[in-house]
Amino acid sequence: MNEKQLAAEKSIEFIKNRMILGLGTGSTVFFLVKKLAELVKQGLDITCVSTSNQTSELAKSLGIRISSLNEVEKIDLTIDGADEVDKNLNGIKGGGGALLYEKIVAKASNKVIWIVDSSKYVLQLGKFPLPVEIISFGSNQLLKRFDELGFNPEIRKNGNDNFITDSGNLIVDLHLNEIEDAINLERQIKLIPGVVEVGLFNNIADLVIIGKGNSTEIINRV
Amino acid sequence: MNEKQLAAEKSIEFIKNRMILGLGTGSTVFFLVKKLAELVKQGLDITCVSTSNQTSELAKSLGIRISSLNEVEKIDLTIDGADEVDKNLNGIKGGGGALLYEKIVAKASNKVIWIVDSSKYVLQLGKFPLPVEIISFGSNQLLKRFDELGFNPEIRKNGNDNFITDSGNLIVDLHLNEIEDAINLERQIKLIPGVVEVGLFNNIADLVIIGKGNSTEIINRV
Repeated sequence: MNEKQLAAEKSIEFIKNRMILGLGTGSTVFFLVKKLAELVKQGLDITCVSTSNQTSELAKSLGIRISSLNEVEKIDLTIDGADEVDKNLNGIKGGGGALLYEKIVAKASNKVIWIVDSSKYVLQLGKFPLPVEIISFGSNQLLKRFDELGFNPEIRKNGNDNFITDSGNLIVDLHLNEIEDAINLERQIKLIPGVVEVGLFNNIADLVIIGKGNSTEIINRV
Repeated sequence: MNEKQLAAEKSIEFIKNRMILGLGTGSTVFFLVKKLAELVKQGLDITCVSTSNQTSELAKSLGIRISSLNEVEKIDLTIDGADEVDKNLNGIKGGGGALLYEKIVAKASNKVIWIVDSSKYVLQLGKFPLPVEIISFGSNQLLKRFDELGFNPEIRKNGNDNFITDSGNLIVDLHLNEIEDAINLERQIKLIPGVVEVGLFNNIADLVIIGKGNSTEIINRV
């Protein structure tokens, strides 16, 4: 079993019958959804809220019940992946382009668990390019602004076209290399008009499960 | 001539040949666009960037050249209306639902002029409900959040349906009555996941032209 799968299957222990469960997006969550489908077949009764069309389609195809976030009162637990996470449990997300819905779902959740392989656990955030969801109207102005700020912006492509999010917006990846102050950077970027959401997830995860070699390690928020 | 028209026509004095001009949205800007069309027919050479489909359609129908914001380098001057403005030239905008594009265009402009009738000039902001553009995904959670914060949120309707912005999002109007600290409130709201933009325009207008009775009054940013 690879590290992603190990972390994903470990997270199952936190799921209880009758929960409303938030499902993230990406290759690690894929293993979670597969395992969840087995448990649902064995009688687990859960309702899931998805963070992307991609996850919704996979889950539905495997017989998992999906509700929209607007239909539920509150989410008990959300399990999601991350592209980078540091020892303070701050992280970068959005490699799959679902950061906006992922952040909205996380904020509506009583508890958030991230599942990652060991390569995602880093001393300092920023090697992974920081995804930012932006409005296409006036996006050239925003790119110029990011450039002036030294953020090395790059519009995400999908082949020859721009990558389009589930909300119809664009993604800019900022090649920062090192993030000194994740809290302030998130604020600075989100406050710029035209920015819809930033892939910095600070003070959101309560617990991270890291697949490492043949086992898992759990890090709790202190 | 009513106060809106007086303010709109006064603003024409600030327009120079060959300018790239940002055009706002709304009933006061309507008078500006009409007057501008006359001047274009008389030989004025300007390129305009619009803040809404509504303004684009009106301007084009009158023979005014419209470029997209992504096609121009910078905007020389933007003229727009406002729903409320105080003596510090902070204001509330978004009554027409175009606040997002209006703010993006304003931020890309070297100079911003607001044209208003005298009823818009207020001692304290907040009587006019504060428009906030939000993502429809999870909007019920956001409404709950605004409610807990005491913001008296109300989803804007268009007949029986929700009002949809040019970016495909929703508008929530916050019935605040009084805004004590416009700078902090703008930050607080914009930082919430799911919020795309806030109708508080602080430190944006350089000059306000107020139509008052039979004349106009000009207030400069100090």
